[in-house]
Amino acid sequence: MSANPILVEVTRGPAVESRHRGAFVVVDASGKIVCAAGDPNMPVYPRSSAKPLQAIPLIESGAADRFGLTDRELALACASHQGEPAHVRAIESWLARIGLSPGSLECGVQAPRTPEASEDAIRKGIRLTPAYHNCSGKHSGFLTACVACGNNPSGYIEPDHPAQRRVTATLGEMTDCDLTRVALGRDGCGIPVYHLPLQNLATGMARLADPSTQPKARAEAAERLLNAMASEPFYVNGTGGFTTEVMKAAPRTVRAKGGFEGVYTAALPTKGLGVALKIEDGAMRAAECAMVHILQALDCFSARGEEQLDQFFNAIIRTFAGNIAGSVRPSASLTSSLSSRLSL
Amino acid sequence: MSANPILVEVTRGPAVESRHRGAFVVVDASGKIVCAAGDPNMPVYPRSSAKPLQAIPLIESGAADRFGLTDRELALACASHQGEPAHVRAIESWLARIGLSPGSLECGVQAPRTPEASEDAIRKGIRLTPAYHNCSGKHSGFLTACVACGNNPSGYIEPDHPAQRRVTATLGEMTDCDLTRVALGRDGCGIPVYHLPLQNLATGMARLADPSTQPKARAEAAERLLNAMASEPFYVNGTGGFTTEVMKAAPRTVRAKGGFEGVYTAALPTKGLGVALKIEDGAMRAAECAMVHILQALDCFSARGEEQLDQFFNAIIRTFAGNIAGSVRPSASLTSSLSSRLSL
Repeated sequence: MSANPILVEVTRGPAVESRHRGAFVVVDASGKIVCAAGDPNMPVYPRSSAKPLQAIPLIESGAADRFGLTDRELALACASHQGEPAHVRAIESWLARIGLSPGSLECGVQAPRTPEASEDAIRKGIRLTPAYHNCSGKHSGFLTACVACGNNPSGYIEPDHPAQRRVTATLGEMTDCDLTRVALGRDGCGIPVYHLPLQNLATGMARLADPSTQPKARAEAAERLLNAMASEPFYVNGTGGFTTEVMKAAPRTVRAKGGFEGVYTAALPTKGLGVALKIEDGAMRAAECAMVHILQALDCFSARGEEQLDQFFNAIIRTFAGNIAGSVRPSASLTSSLSSRLSL
Repeated sequence: MSANPILVEVTRGPAVESRHRGAFVVVDASGKIVCAAGDPNMPVYPRSSAKPLQAIPLIESGAADRFGLTDRELALACASHQGEPAHVRAIESWLARIGLSPGSLECGVQAPRTPEASEDAIRKGIRLTPAYHNCSGKHSGFLTACVACGNNPSGYIEPDHPAQRRVTATLGEMTDCDLTRVALGRDGCGIPVYHLPLQNLATGMARLADPSTQPKARAEAAERLLNAMASEPFYVNGTGGFTTEVMKAAPRTVRAKGGFEGVYTAALPTKGLGVALKIEDGAMRAAECAMVHILQALDCFSARGEEQLDQFFNAIIRTFAGNIAGSVRPSASLTSSLSSRLSL
């Protein structure tokens, strides 16, 4: 396979120390490419970046209405949260409302991810449950749909369980991809993950952003999920998290979602576009740097929004004593691919 | 610049999820290449992988003898330790013996790196000092040389301080590189770091492994440092650490050292060879996978040694619930470059 371009460089002193290659693609709801770099057909595991697509059946099944899910809970269904106390409490109360508990979650246990929440859990000797897992909101959504549809929730993470059949069917429709024909892996939280072309993933996000050609129920589900993410950005990620900060800085224009191994997606509702990005080596530092510059080139940020995101636009590497040692910056090839994009 | 080959692949289910490019080179003490992949002239910041070379002046200056440094202390001078209690106690007692304390270390503060040491420090509310920093042994070596040579230790991390002038001169000689002509950055611990060609870094390690053409004092220093690393592998890294485990599994044949941003070096004393490896994107998971397979191809491990290193030869990626999801494995191009090496 031909090499994807270097998208991000990590500098130290006057030299480039490390380089991150990757591909990104921006499409409209028909799948037409507006802007790209690297191979748009590169297959990628979306990991958590597909969560807003995976949450559609929670609404279409009627489960969200039946249990009166709030925007906060819908945001959690689309979230990779950090296991902060507010995230965990919200999951516990949601599960209690559908008659279940964190013990029904099959995602496994993950320690909290912010330094404060992590140290607090250690200091207090808190017994961690699956509610702390970054995917516990997505899994709570699966469980809610199971209860509403009368499915036995046990084994809801398996590909042939009704919960995953619903999710896979929706994901295939939204991304225009026959998922029976692509590689199938297991995500970190145990559910199926499909190796689909980057452009198809971007198309799924574009159809969330512009659901005008979707069936009415799907279009309403898409709008409701994107509104929930915009209303409750803290519940999509958490304190200082990239997608939370981006959505706080651009609440009208961007719904962004990250996935492990260097994946980011975004739905841009005011432009009707979808974005998908994969850093070849999986580095999140590079994915964040590339994504914030792609969104900037797509005119997603106000001047004030850009100021709020300074830590991502100008990511500094410091010595342990606090002196500046280097930076994470977009490569010349990323900058040039962004400046040559089609006029929107 | 032309792309370095993919050396390591990260799989998930039946597909490759992420790819790591890089270069490595194996040379003898004259700098002649025995085996390589990618660009051997690629400039790299060695980061901590050069520590065994940076420790030479500690011995050549007479400081190690004057203060009766033990193998454990010399191993720490070459170490990136994990801030485990035994590491910190050894540093504190060493500094006390030269009349100083952790307050003289200019490396900054870093929290312990093993889960056990990290959680213990949080639980007990331990006040962290620079002794916990992974480079505190190297810095204690610099301070020891300052005291022995009558240099005021203050500012010993700056390029023009006598401590760093000694280290830079030695590093330039060992690597056959005019360091005044390469990019100069600041390492994470504050000291100068030079952007030198990968092959030169490997040459420095080969001359540690085979110091037969070096001046007598340098040859003795090289042997003493390599012996110290072999005698005290725990103090070079720590519990479960890659270089500690490799040296425990191959105590006669390998002295390995890692550096941030995907760098590994090794000195192979029984073969008189040096190895240097850089993963382009800085990923340590890829650097460990590539390094263990390079050392295997160079016949460094017994069958039992390979068994002991199974966690690195067969690095498994699991779901949070503990099921196997994928692996980190050498690429076909790494395997083929290793099988086409010159016969040793």
